[in-house]
Amino acid sequence: MTESVHASNGTSSMRIAMGVEYLGGRYAGWQQQHHCDSVQARVEAALSRVADHPVQVVCAGRTDAGVHGLGQVIHFDTPARRNMHGWRLGGTTYLPDDIALTWAQPVAPMFDARRSALQRHYRYVILNRPVRPAWLHGQVAWTWKPLDAQRMHAGAQHLLGERDFTSFRAVACQAAHAWREVTRVDVARDGDFIYLDVSANAFLHHMVRNIAGTLMTVGAGERPPDWVAEVLSARDRTVGGMTAPAAGLYMVAVDYPEAFRLPAPPAPPRFA
Amino acid sequence: MTESVHASNGTSSMRIAMGVEYLGGRYAGWQQQHHCDSVQARVEAALSRVADHPVQVVCAGRTDAGVHGLGQVIHFDTPARRNMHGWRLGGTTYLPDDIALTWAQPVAPMFDARRSALQRHYRYVILNRPVRPAWLHGQVAWTWKPLDAQRMHAGAQHLLGERDFTSFRAVACQAAHAWREVTRVDVARDGDFIYLDVSANAFLHHMVRNIAGTLMTVGAGERPPDWVAEVLSARDRTVGGMTAPAAGLYMVAVDYPEAFRLPAPPAPPRFA
Repeated sequence: MTESVHASNGTSSMRIAMGVEYLGGRYAGWQQQHHCDSVQARVEAALSRVADHPVQVVCAGRTDAGVHGLGQVIHFDTPARRNMHGWRLGGTTYLPDDIALTWAQPVAPMFDARRSALQRHYRYVILNRPVRPAWLHGQVAWTWKPLDAQRMHAGAQHLLGERDFTSFRAVACQAAHAWREVTRVDVARDGDFIYLDVSANAFLHHMVRNIAGTLMTVGAGERPPDWVAEVLSARDRTVGGMTAPAAGLYMVAVDYPEAFRLPAPPAPPRFA
Repeated sequence: MTESVHASNGTSSMRIAMGVEYLGGRYAGWQQQHHCDSVQARVEAALSRVADHPVQVVCAGRTDAGVHGLGQVIHFDTPARRNMHGWRLGGTTYLPDDIALTWAQPVAPMFDARRSALQRHYRYVILNRPVRPAWLHGQVAWTWKPLDAQRMHAGAQHLLGERDFTSFRAVACQAAHAWREVTRVDVARDGDFIYLDVSANAFLHHMVRNIAGTLMTVGAGERPPDWVAEVLSARDRTVGGMTAPAAGLYMVAVDYPEAFRLPAPPAPPRFA
């Protein structure tokens, strides 16, 4: 493994990429916010202890409050010399039990966890049965309304391609424009669980949760699958379904150019 | 659906069976204990509110502190007339978010959740990777030592049949004797997860966790598979492996005679 070293502020600084896994329920989201506990703040505090200097990290995707990360990727620069074992296991030691660092790897200085990302992959999990979840509370969304996954999948196909996702974007979204390219959107049932997998070059604020809410409306038989195309072309957030709860959403993987040789992402969550 | 009615204390009482699902981490175990929060106490409090009289329940298997229930079965007697929907959904309304009632069904008065059980099925889940769990903390056991699931499975086969499980019984176990019939014991890996499935007519205190601990010693290569036979024949708890943590253990199903026509159990937990 080559340890790429580059100059920064006169000291020899190294750029390191890491994988982060977390359960989002106890946090106000990924991002550092005043007076709120964030995953980022916890990770930076842990890595700062390993590095013995303040560490600032950049992540692939800033997940919302309550959203989980299985394949989150970060990078940071440090003059500290630690082996990868030390960053990963040492850093995890200083983290609460719902956050862990899954891998660490030196990367070239042009690697950027956010800007180098080619594709992001999210999974949304819905428990679909009469009774609310118990052993998976906080880890899945739930509806008692019987959902037809095939209908949901059919409707979802209208979202494929490069499109204006204004109708699936939170009002608070700060992105410059709403054009995103969705390369995969699959819905499948396995027992009481429905899995929605969405891949895109990038996502807007609440985009997957708004897609999930709209598809749940279709799955419940309240709208036809073609309604998804209507919602999309309306370019108006108010015409779609509700924003589905954060608890069901997992950031599962981020793709980078092969040249960076990052580890394979973990398997996406399944529950039965 | 026939609602079996029988006489009890001069009032017309009905016996009802229910399924219970829970995450054990916040509880001192199934059983009602002084000054401790138990799953039983929560379920009895919830059903008492639905029934409008104090309800006492009998369960199929009293799980330990931290052990999870997916297919726990209970029964209770009540003179209250509620439809099954009311017991299940009404009862769940009064429960904390980590306990739910999954089904309710009237049963014949000779049905007993504990005594009528023919077989109990447990699954033990081990996350086997260098880094501790994060999104599944409290829901799986973990070891960084690489485990060979095939070795574990080979060793486990020594436990099949009707045997004296003294070596796998907690010192505090109050059962009259240690003879139990194990009808299935399978170990398999799927990605970073190892699943241990054990079925028996009944279990001793800590039996699955002691089996898991002994098999983990074999899986780590610290003992040969045949060591399991040695441990078993020693009839001495001190010769086996450690008691594996409660977090990895799930009670997944209970078998009853077909005549009671109870619902099928849920799918056992999987995580990838």
